[in-house]
Amino acid sequence: MTPTLATKADDADRLAALAAERYRNAQQLGGDWNETLETILSHRSVRSYLPKPVPHMAVELAVAAAQSAPSSSNLQAWSVVAVEGTERRSRLNAIAGNQRQIAQAPLLLVWLADLARPREIAEDGGSTADGLDYIESFLLGVIDAALAAQNAVVTLESLGLGTCYIGAIRNDPEAVARELALPDGVFPVFGLTVGFPDPAQPAAVKPRLPQSTVLHREHYTKEKRSHDLAAYNKVLRSFQTEQAMPALDWTDQVSHRIGTVEALKGRHVLAAAARRLGFQLK
Amino acid sequence: MTPTLATKADDADRLAALAAERYRNAQQLGGDWNETLETILSHRSVRSYLPKPVPHMAVELAVAAAQSAPSSSNLQAWSVVAVEGTERRSRLNAIAGNQRQIAQAPLLLVWLADLARPREIAEDGGSTADGLDYIESFLLGVIDAALAAQNAVVTLESLGLGTCYIGAIRNDPEAVARELALPDGVFPVFGLTVGFPDPAQPAAVKPRLPQSTVLHREHYTKEKRSHDLAAYNKVLRSFQTEQAMPALDWTDQVSHRIGTVEALKGRHVLAAAARRLGFQLK
Repeated sequence: MTPTLATKADDADRLAALAAERYRNAQQLGGDWNETLETILSHRSVRSYLPKPVPHMAVELAVAAAQSAPSSSNLQAWSVVAVEGTERRSRLNAIAGNQRQIAQAPLLLVWLADLARPREIAEDGGSTADGLDYIESFLLGVIDAALAAQNAVVTLESLGLGTCYIGAIRNDPEAVARELALPDGVFPVFGLTVGFPDPAQPAAVKPRLPQSTVLHREHYTKEKRSHDLAAYNKVLRSFQTEQAMPALDWTDQVSHRIGTVEALKGRHVLAAAARRLGFQLK
Repeated sequence: MTPTLATKADDADRLAALAAERYRNAQQLGGDWNETLETILSHRSVRSYLPKPVPHMAVELAVAAAQSAPSSSNLQAWSVVAVEGTERRSRLNAIAGNQRQIAQAPLLLVWLADLARPREIAEDGGSTADGLDYIESFLLGVIDAALAAQNAVVTLESLGLGTCYIGAIRNDPEAVARELALPDGVFPVFGLTVGFPDPAQPAAVKPRLPQSTVLHREHYTKEKRSHDLAAYNKVLRSFQTEQAMPALDWTDQVSHRIGTVEALKGRHVLAAAARRLGFQLK
């Protein structure tokens, strides 16, 4: 079907609106609009949910989407645990520092780098599994899990659900492993809360850095960086003011978040925890 | 708009077809079809491309999509280098073991965990950046880059482009860093070839493990695993036969791929390389 001129103009308007919301600068986005672009570009993390369960159908679609993500050498070195039980969710929330979105969401998906499955397969077949003892294999599992999870996020959003990643389960991966009965060689990478967004508490699209800060051509460059960062500090302050949040330069937030060991909230011992969970990280 | 009964039946048919292609078993997928689901569930890795450049517009949409992915604490600890120059692509291809898809694709995106930017921000503001010295921060950058890249993949596919991840740039991250002028604290996580799929060499949807192998309810379980693996070996063999590939059990492929240090193709020294690139991995 050839789009009419009117449709093309509508497409351009919609892409301009999405770009304006995401960047709040002169960034232009061209080309034809489509529904997938709309879903992805209008992402927002949802922290307020209705007390309404997530249909099993949606979970199965999300996992099919996750499995449709690329996987290194087709190893499929990940798993996911869907936690709905109130008590288990509440104990996992305690590990993550008691966050409102975990308390409210009817479903918590815990995404796992799963090297236990390939190890078992190799050992059952009488082979060694020596390649798994290296940090490369740990990374492979983490990347497989992340690509899978992001496909699930986009899919859930296309179905009208909202999500929020929970990195804080890495505050104590061993406690998470006990709670979910994870065997040796399985590492909880992050959680993901899932539920129907509460329309009374709508989430906003968070503006991001100018494209020129993250997109490099042919080789890495920081030519425009100081200009970009000053502009982004301004953009984020105006966003914070709109959201009735305390206004703070992004660069100061970054300094605070990575400045000290304390700011890691316990995750400075992650390497030791991963080793106790069966990853040699050679 | 209320969907008509006819539309609902079409939706069900389309979801059934997508499920059949991805799983080749009794897996059902229910609910309403949408364009985003179609894009994600019908993913295939593309290794044959037309000699036709990727429009700049598409790269900008892909990067906007990447930036729309969630980012831990909004640190946005990733960057991407778009490599189009023939000579640089060919040198990067040599590092990755000379793969057909890298030679053919007009664009290679190299996705980076970027802790150099937050470090510079902190140090310019007179702060320390001690939190960055831990494996947790390395993981954070890798995860941020992976979530961003997967959003780009889905977006590029929605625009009719094809992609293929290239984990093999981790065969020698230091050579990649030299080629792309990466500063200390920036790690190349993976490449991604991008181009228009060659219709003369269509790629197929690769069947994946049964959902019950990867989706766990409430806690981890391997109850159905041996049954699932036997079924998947059969499914993959029939796929390989169709594709005129040598038929080999998936479980044997896994054993081969992770069995030995040699199978890591040089990536057993990744930890040392990352340390020389400025990651202490404490």
